[in-house]
Amino acid sequence: MSNHYSSAPSAYAYPLIIKQLLNRAKTVSTEQEIVYADKKRMTYADFFQRIGQFANVLAGLNLDKGDVVAVMDWDSHRYLESYFAVPMSEYVIQTVNIRLSPEKVLYTINHAKPKVLMVNSEFAPLVKDYQFENSSIEHIIWLDDNGVSYEGVFGHNENRVIGEYEALLAAASPEFEFPDFDENTIASTFYTSGTTGDPKGVFFTHRQLVLHTLTEAASLGVLPQKQGVSFGDVYMPMTPMFHVHAWGFPFTATMIGLKQVYPGRYAPDTLMDLIINEKVSITHCVPTILQMVIGEAQKRGVGFDGLKMIIGGSRLTEGVAKAALESDIEVYTGYGMSETAPLISLSSFSINEPEMTLEQDIERRCMTGNPVMMVDAQIWDQEQNSLPHDGEQTGELVLRAPWLTQSYFKNDDAGRELWQGGYMHTEDIAYMTASGTIKITDRLKDVIKSGGEWISSLQIETILSLHPSVADVAVIGVRDEQWGERPLAAIVLKPHCKDTTVEDIKAVAEQAVEKGMIPKYGVPSKFLLVDDLPKTSVGKHDKKVMRELYADQTGI
Amino acid sequence: MSNHYSSAPSAYAYPLIIKQLLNRAKTVSTEQEIVYADKKRMTYADFFQRIGQFANVLAGLNLDKGDVVAVMDWDSHRYLESYFAVPMSEYVIQTVNIRLSPEKVLYTINHAKPKVLMVNSEFAPLVKDYQFENSSIEHIIWLDDNGVSYEGVFGHNENRVIGEYEALLAAASPEFEFPDFDENTIASTFYTSGTTGDPKGVFFTHRQLVLHTLTEAASLGVLPQKQGVSFGDVYMPMTPMFHVHAWGFPFTATMIGLKQVYPGRYAPDTLMDLIINEKVSITHCVPTILQMVIGEAQKRGVGFDGLKMIIGGSRLTEGVAKAALESDIEVYTGYGMSETAPLISLSSFSINEPEMTLEQDIERRCMTGNPVMMVDAQIWDQEQNSLPHDGEQTGELVLRAPWLTQSYFKNDDAGRELWQGGYMHTEDIAYMTASGTIKITDRLKDVIKSGGEWISSLQIETILSLHPSVADVAVIGVRDEQWGERPLAAIVLKPHCKDTTVEDIKAVAEQAVEKGMIPKYGVPSKFLLVDDLPKTSVGKHDKKVMRELYADQTGI
Repeated sequence: MSNHYSSAPSAYAYPLIIKQLLNRAKTVSTEQEIVYADKKRMTYADFFQRIGQFANVLAGLNLDKGDVVAVMDWDSHRYLESYFAVPMSEYVIQTVNIRLSPEKVLYTINHAKPKVLMVNSEFAPLVKDYQFENSSIEHIIWLDDNGVSYEGVFGHNENRVIGEYEALLAAASPEFEFPDFDENTIASTFYTSGTTGDPKGVFFTHRQLVLHTLTEAASLGVLPQKQGVSFGDVYMPMTPMFHVHAWGFPFTATMIGLKQVYPGRYAPDTLMDLIINEKVSITHCVPTILQMVIGEAQKRGVGFDGLKMIIGGSRLTEGVAKAALESDIEVYTGYGMSETAPLISLSSFSINEPEMTLEQDIERRCMTGNPVMMVDAQIWDQEQNSLPHDGEQTGELVLRAPWLTQSYFKNDDAGRELWQGGYMHTEDIAYMTASGTIKITDRLKDVIKSGGEWISSLQIETILSLHPSVADVAVIGVRDEQWGERPLAAIVLKPHCKDTTVEDIKAVAEQAVEKGMIPKYGVPSKFLLVDDLPKTSVGKHDKKVMRELYADQTGI
Repeated sequence: MSNHYSSAPSAYAYPLIIKQLLNRAKTVSTEQEIVYADKKRMTYADFFQRIGQFANVLAGLNLDKGDVVAVMDWDSHRYLESYFAVPMSEYVIQTVNIRLSPEKVLYTINHAKPKVLMVNSEFAPLVKDYQFENSSIEHIIWLDDNGVSYEGVFGHNENRVIGEYEALLAAASPEFEFPDFDENTIASTFYTSGTTGDPKGVFFTHRQLVLHTLTEAASLGVLPQKQGVSFGDVYMPMTPMFHVHAWGFPFTATMIGLKQVYPGRYAPDTLMDLIINEKVSITHCVPTILQMVIGEAQKRGVGFDGLKMIIGGSRLTEGVAKAALESDIEVYTGYGMSETAPLISLSSFSINEPEMTLEQDIERRCMTGNPVMMVDAQIWDQEQNSLPHDGEQTGELVLRAPWLTQSYFKNDDAGRELWQGGYMHTEDIAYMTASGTIKITDRLKDVIKSGGEWISSLQIETILSLHPSVADVAVIGVRDEQWGERPLAAIVLKPHCKDTTVEDIKAVAEQAVEKGMIPKYGVPSKFLLVDDLPKTSVGKHDKKVMRELYADQTGI
């Protein structure tokens, strides 16, 4: 029968491409504001003109469809304009993570092969010795707020510089007819941080970003007003725009037509000034930035007036959540990763929820939250069986959603592993409650597989850290002939507790077994007292190094 | 470059099909309630089981993909189950408008050619003499709440009845693996009311309904809590489920995981009981139903406790809006039509809006509102030029959105007309303000085209009705050799005003010209005093009949 339902010849099939996100804002939000720190204010009407101008600048560069435009900038109006103008012109935006080591930054550029590099003058030292001759970069656009000239910076490669961004836009016509094209065209690419190897490239289509934007608006919209997004909110990112589309929020805020504030480089006083002066009402960040702005507010003796703040990137702890609530920040958790565009889950709130204690309230704000709409989230055991949502059984969190990277760029093996069994593997170990709340308990690579069972290193670490003599503890799995793997605990004692013995600490684990907190096989087979534990550059336990270091403990 | 971004072999491409709307609810909302009047209560977990059972019943009928399942029912849990189980099984649901005349109801069935008819025992009289032998209907499913048997109803066609719905479900397995398929598969079809000819069939794909659902959740979600949708709301339709997917809200409410209440046949006391007892917090209806429930509440001396109510279908007048607000109903306007699935625009609210007077507040609630996200709404003149949004210039409202019917079913000519110039023609005359608020001023067919200019019959009628002697007035266009068309006013005088002359009434129009309210050519060329005006079955002026009746007034 279906063939009877034929479309009219000039019916509009409506591709899900990024320009469609602007339809409402173009009609309703022309007078709304976009602010760049203390440097620039404009209306959405200006913004629409400027992305036309930017598109005309790009159109003059003789690029091919699908060519990559790399951006190295702090959070700015320029970045927002690039989010739209670059993919709407059928090019791919590469958001360069400038927080990686210089070698890794250059690795990601050499891997993505951009033809255009947009670079903030502050990052000139990073690229000035770059081997442009051997690279894909044909054109450089200079981004600058401080009157710094590009003259002399690039040596004999200066001819690649086509000009300074604002000057280029000023000279271009705002008239540009953004075309329709296939919604499965790639729109954006960026790289995972690659803590355990080279950064891996993820990539997203127009369709994926449109669906992410719609679902994010819906998911944040149906949260109660106190936590969610409403018309009239003022948005500012505090997770950078080079990091997983800044939660996709610049797209979402523009579609809704919110006032937007871009803070440039994150400095506590600038962030606080903008929150106060621009009346920022919703933002997102990592716990470190949250603590930074709380510190700044305390210094000034001011509060946050109910600022809504989604925490992601690393775990929101109960202590930090409490401090945030005390500063009048409506803090809660969002979960996602580079591979997921990123939104997967949000803390649960309802206008009709039962009363809860402060502790319960803090606890749910620190949970990984409920999957957002359209997301099919499951907990899988090692044989890819879906486990029941009983709040107990842990397995790997695997996902389907309309916006997950479909592989890694030029890395088919890693892509195949990512999508084993038709679901995207997060490599996070979690359980789910009967009401669909996810709790991440561990990273897969930190889980110890002992006799076919999984032991959470995080849980054992938490228990051992309860011993008053323990300053730091890490639990890793070491090879074992009988069990496959067995846990080993490496412990740093507090300076004045040097007479505490391995047996004293083991007793804590055994008490936890008696109380039913952990199974018997969760007690580490070996306890080592060490002077310190290897750390990564960001201060986390470097378990990779530890596994090498203690590899000789095999067969304990 | 794009070809480098290859997908992993088992990456999930995620088709936008209706089953995906259930992903979140299946994880998060299993204990949430679905209520059918005072007849049935169940959880979402039950609902998921039941759509599996229903799918197994349908699977036993040997249907082909794309076959039509027609539903004739009041708003019930059965209807909700059909919204999901039928399209998720790759069949098309036809929602039969049982408010049409019996002839037109049968016309729509004969036109859509369903193989399965689901019919509520209350509509048995309507179909009992139906010529099943000459129709497409092979199977009948009996829907009944009152212990009425189908025995004897269908005469020798009784063998087509496969059973009563609840009995069929009870006998079926809940295990059903809903398959993935092309998102452009047709999911639903229904018919316009056809006031000016045969009803016309519109149709929607899975993709369109998913995108409508997501955008509706986003658009209602980002309204302030007082007007919008939040987790914790309780939904009940008061626009029937056979009418443009009941605003698409059953899909949206299920995706979000709201408690849902289905009221059966709309009776004021049942509706009011359910609003109170089930704590309904959001609904939608036509102004007539609104007035009905206000009347019921006044009789009982109760209020509505901030019940959110979206009015569509016919214009919300200032008087009715005021009465609703006084009864503590948060009333506002949504705009859409059969061809648009239906959501196109909503009244504007913001958490940061400037203070306004009660009159201003009522006015914006009665406006057609702002286009929702993704909607490209334009005002076109007769040459398909887009007119400025200046709050003055009127033209036809034309649309692009991801969920518009792509034609009329088996009516290519009408489909071609609908989509002239690549935008969907609403046949509504409107202007748009600088802030994107649409105001419908007229139906296109009621506009009078005089010398290349458009005259709003509605506006002239409003002005003439201000004369104290006028009981009723209709203005239509009649053929004119010089001007193409000229307005003619047909007037019914109040009983005690029979000495009022045509000149007296014309003077009102001329005063309006002097005050600049209408152009000079807006004064009708002919005024007729008549005893009464032809009306349609729903009590509106029948201008089609009037145009025939007064056609001899050509060349006035």
